Amino acid sequence: MYVESPEIKENIKISDLIDQLSLTAFNARKLGEVAKICYKMVKDKATVFLTLAGAMVPAGMRNIINTFIERKIVSVLISTGANVVHELAEALGFRHKIISSSDFNLDNSNLNRVYDVLIETSAFEAIENFIEKLLNDLNKNGVKEKISSYELIWEIGKRINGKSFLKSAYEKSIPIVSPTLHDSIIGLQLSVLSNLCIDYTKDIKLLLDLCFKAKKSGIIIIGGGVPKNFALQSMLLAEGFDYAVQITTDSPHFGGLSGATLEEAKSWCKLKKNAETATVYCDATIVLPLIAVYILEKLKTD
Amino acid sequence: MYVESPEIKENIKISDLIDQLSLTAFNARKLGEVAKICYKMVKDKATVFLTLAGAMVPAGMRNIINTFIERKIVSVLISTGANVVHELAEALGFRHKIISSSDFNLDNSNLNRVYDVLIETSAFEAIENFIEKLLNDLNKNGVKEKISSYELIWEIGKRINGKSFLKSAYEKSIPIVSPTLHDSIIGLQLSVLSNLCIDYTKDIKLLLDLCFKAKKSGIIIIGGGVPKNFALQSMLLAEGFDYAVQITTDSPHFGGLSGATLEEAKSWCKLKKNAETATVYCDATIVLPLIAVYILEKLKTD
Amino acid sequence: MYVESPEIKENIKISDLIDQLSLTAFNARKLGEVAKICYKMVKDKATVFLTLAGAMVPAGMRNIINTFIERKIVSVLISTGANVVHELAEALGFRHKIISSSDFNLDNSNLNRVYDVLIETSAFEAIENFIEKLLNDLNKNGVKEKISSYELIWEIGKRINGKSFLKSAYEKSIPIVSPTLHDSIIGLQLSVLSNLCIDYTKDIKLLLDLCFKAKKSGIIIIGGGVPKNFALQSMLLAEGFDYAVQITTDSPHFGGLSGATLEEAKSWCKLKKNAETATVYCDATIVLPLIAVYILEKLKTD
Amino acid sequence: MYVESPEIKENIKISDLIDQLSLTAFNARKLGEVAKICYKMVKDKATVFLTLAGAMVPAGMRNIINTFIERKIVSVLISTGANVVHELAEALGFRHKIISSSDFNLDNSNLNRVYDVLIETSAFEAIENFIEKLLNDLNKNGVKEKISSYELIWEIGKRINGKSFLKSAYEKSIPIVSPTLHDSIIGLQLSVLSNLCIDYTKDIKLLLDLCFKAKKSGIIIIGGGVPKNFALQSMLLAEGFDYAVQITTDSPHFGGLSGATLEEAKSWCKLKKNAETATVYCDATIVLPLIAVYILEKLKTD
Repeated sequence: MYVESPEIKENIKISDLIDQLSLTAFNARKLGEVAKICYKMVKDKATVFLTLAGAMVPAGMRNIINTFIERKIVSVLISTGANVVHELAEALGFRHKIISSSDFNLDNSNLNRVYDVLIETSAFEAIENFIEKLLNDLNKNGVKEKISSYELIWEIGKRINGKSFLKSAYEKSIPIVSPTLHDSIIGLQLSVLSNLCIDYTKDIKLLLDLCFKAKKSGIIIIGGGVPKNFALQSMLLAEGFDYAVQITTDSPHFGGLSGATLEEAKSWCKLKKNAETATVYCDATIVLPLIAVYILEKLKTD
Repeated sequence: MYVESPEIKENIKISDLIDQLSLTAFNARKLGEVAKICYKMVKDKATVFLTLAGAMVPAGMRNIINTFIERKIVSVLISTGANVVHELAEALGFRHKIISSSDFNLDNSNLNRVYDVLIETSAFEAIENFIEKLLNDLNKNGVKEKISSYELIWEIGKRINGKSFLKSAYEKSIPIVSPTLHDSIIGLQLSVLSNLCIDYTKDIKLLLDLCFKAKKSGIIIIGGGVPKNFALQSMLLAEGFDYAVQITTDSPHFGGLSGATLEEAKSWCKLKKNAETATVYCDATIVLPLIAVYILEKLKTD
Repeated sequence: MYVESPEIKENIKISDLIDQLSLTAFNARKLGEVAKICYKMVKDKATVFLTLAGAMVPAGMRNIINTFIERKIVSVLISTGANVVHELAEALGFRHKIISSSDFNLDNSNLNRVYDVLIETSAFEAIENFIEKLLNDLNKNGVKEKISSYELIWEIGKRINGKSFLKSAYEKSIPIVSPTLHDSIIGLQLSVLSNLCIDYTKDIKLLLDLCFKAKKSGIIIIGGGVPKNFALQSMLLAEGFDYAVQITTDSPHFGGLSGATLEEAKSWCKLKKNAETATVYCDATIVLPLIAVYILEKLKTD
Repeated sequence: MYVESPEIKENIKISDLIDQLSLTAFNARKLGEVAKICYKMVKDKATVFLTLAGAMVPAGMRNIINTFIERKIVSVLISTGANVVHELAEALGFRHKIISSSDFNLDNSNLNRVYDVLIETSAFEAIENFIEKLLNDLNKNGVKEKISSYELIWEIGKRINGKSFLKSAYEKSIPIVSPTLHDSIIGLQLSVLSNLCIDYTKDIKLLLDLCFKAKKSGIIIIGGGVPKNFALQSMLLAEGFDYAVQITTDSPHFGGLSGATLEEAKSWCKLKKNAETATVYCDATIVLPLIAVYILEKLKTD
């Protein structure tokens, strides 16, 4: 098979460009392979796990996640606590601001920085109040000792008015599992105000159940971290994923999980030996929107 | 201040070489700065948080962690679940094997790969048995619903015979907090065999308490991830760390937490505005042994 | 200014998506900024330097380079010798092949590997023959001692029949300066067969001249390396570039040129103090096609 | 073979620590392997090529390079022009300064920045004067048209009074080949003041000759770039190197030369199929001093 250099033209469809890139090399080819495997999982009606690490919500990827959930392209979202918290901030009307480079090393105690994005401290105060009220509600309903992360996040989504993937997940009954929810302002508030413990054994059971019931299964890994491992390890007792893709900026040669190849996941039997896999080494803020358009365009034309 | 090129000689002490490197540039200088700040925290009798992410135990760093705990150089260890699990495997007599490159894409269902290291599946079976017995013990003692990660890890350490930092931590009363313990074979086993929920609210309270009580505080961050954030966020309600260093292979310019600069942590008030900080961008397997020798040599000569 | 999360839809134009990404964060925003500055240079009729490092021709980017030259979007190309050699191979009818992962550590002395691309050794034998004939021609025409790289590359382009950016550059009188042409099979062949020396002093004079004459000037840096520095240093005696963008996978924090920020270039006066700049940290095989489409679409609609 | 976790003690010799690290994993093990292969080449009396890219002189590595040359540990140095220029600046009495982070985005037209190092513009004026005089001298001696880079650098070294590896190389008759010497202030000055062309065909012949005559040969690659390729391609006509190590911060998965694996070099026959190789992914400012001590200590004790 030969490398085919794409001819660039105005008004080329994104899905067509990506198909062309799948005949180039390096990470452009990998982008093409990742997009094709993602579409294959969806077309194949596989149970699709989407894992989310890295500050994807502050970086503006929330509407894409929402589209995946609203259109039921994914079956479950496994996310860091930070993305849940920042999504809640947006849902409560707070905004992430673009930082100008001159403000980079700012000395303003009311602004918190995530690389080139800022968010006001008042957003977190609003979240603390929201969580306090939620705890009171739960308490009244007898939830005092334990709750799984996905149930807690549904309770949050139920109470949101604006557009948010937290709300969509509740409405569409898509679970959002957050194995690091305690590692966030929500977890801190729970600790300070209550003895309510996030019961991850129940989250694990949910994922195990999804794994066992799936006829075909796929996983889209964004950025590695705990969501990657937590989703993959739920396949240890089942057969392994049929499809797996990852978008990461980490490197294999440092030995960490986030950069680990999908071949490594095969040695642990988290993927089937013959699973279709591809990894693209790239910032997900670039790749994720492209893949989202790819899936939507292919769904329409197929 | 000028860059001073080190004169290389036989039998130079590691601490002397590192002091010389602190007058060079790029990451050699940063290694020097990190080492100096680490020693400063220790000499200053600060409460030292050590956070551990990345597969440091499979990579052979366990005896260094043990030295830090046995000699009470650190006050608390915040570790991924994976490092706890692999340490338990070694404590139970299993060994990590060096992979030869020809075995890299092996097809052996009894061998699990972590980059260039292998471990037998039987190690995890032994861990499952160990955890099953432990659960029975805890059950008899009335621990059925909730336990913090640090108490669970002390219970593990108590039952270990061989040399291990899990045992040392128990013996020296150094807590090991593992905010991702559920994201490991231990968490999986807990889910399958019991309703015992790891109560991270209690871990958070322990860390908050350490933060409040510390006269001076320092943090040594190895590899980022949840341990980094979990340790840093425990300072949100206190004054911020006085000293902070990190060893990471991630980059700031992808916006993720593991590569985030310590200046960013200052904007969140997790570090004091005038905290002494340094970051070295390097595989911790190279930097950690050097820094450990540095601290021990300086402790001896000062 | 707020982060605006893009709404993903089918059939969105690439230039519209990129404009939306310029309101997100991390490298997606940078991609947006790079694209906008590139278009600005072109619209502003600036003298545009395009520098090319990394194996962009083996990776399938040759038609994009050709479009930039044929449509006179760039005024001069500064390329590694390797890209010239691989382009010559394609122009002579040889093809780069996509490697299947099972062939990765192949033991075939007739196949040469560039990451996930292969090329047959016979391609280089054909290039050696081509260069031998060219040397004879030049010799007859009295070129025996010295020739600049751009004149030598025009002589190559003149003798090519198929479609190639080497041919287009000759036809459109766009110089291709290759400051590392001696660091390639062409350089090796010159050494073995002749005393013809590549006279880079003449290349430098060409670039200095372009810098002096430019009313406005811009530079698009792909991948760093010698092409980056060679182009930038030609501004040392002039006023500095007005626009500068770079696409790189290197990091600033290792201190090397390829990852160096454009702020650093300002301290050397290679860019004007108020130059518009942006850097996107990404594999150019992904970013370059997107930016090319962006420029073409904007040229059409403006 | 098992991973052996090093026991850290005060006053451990650097060579002993590195030997211990060779039994760990990830890049610590690679550091150990690189060090051992380096020592093996030296002990085996191989012809050793040392290639140097990245701003190693500004970063304070010049005395280490000098030790390698003075003690004839290496047979030839292949360096970027930038390292030659910065070494000349130091030899002429100018110093590189450590930048404080508050000066990072300085606006001072007399200071030029290389990441966290500064150098005054006056250093380059002194170099321009030095080169002008040198050109006059060469002119008087009839060198008007062409000179190889290694001869030009010897001419520079001959005229230096202070301690410098340029001087040592001249005194010890070790050639310094600089395939990008024209890509530096020296090249710029040559272009502006003369028609003297750097004759790289002669440099290539020197390297080819070294390759042909070597009974055993080894290569130590620091940082990739043109020096890496220029050295490796000189083996294309000979048998291939017997030993090869590289220290790089680049990654294989972006397809560029600087991060390319040494397996890739084998596919081009630049290394023997059974060559002993190792790559450590690390900033050379950390690894190079350690390896230098390793070689010296082993030479003493063996």
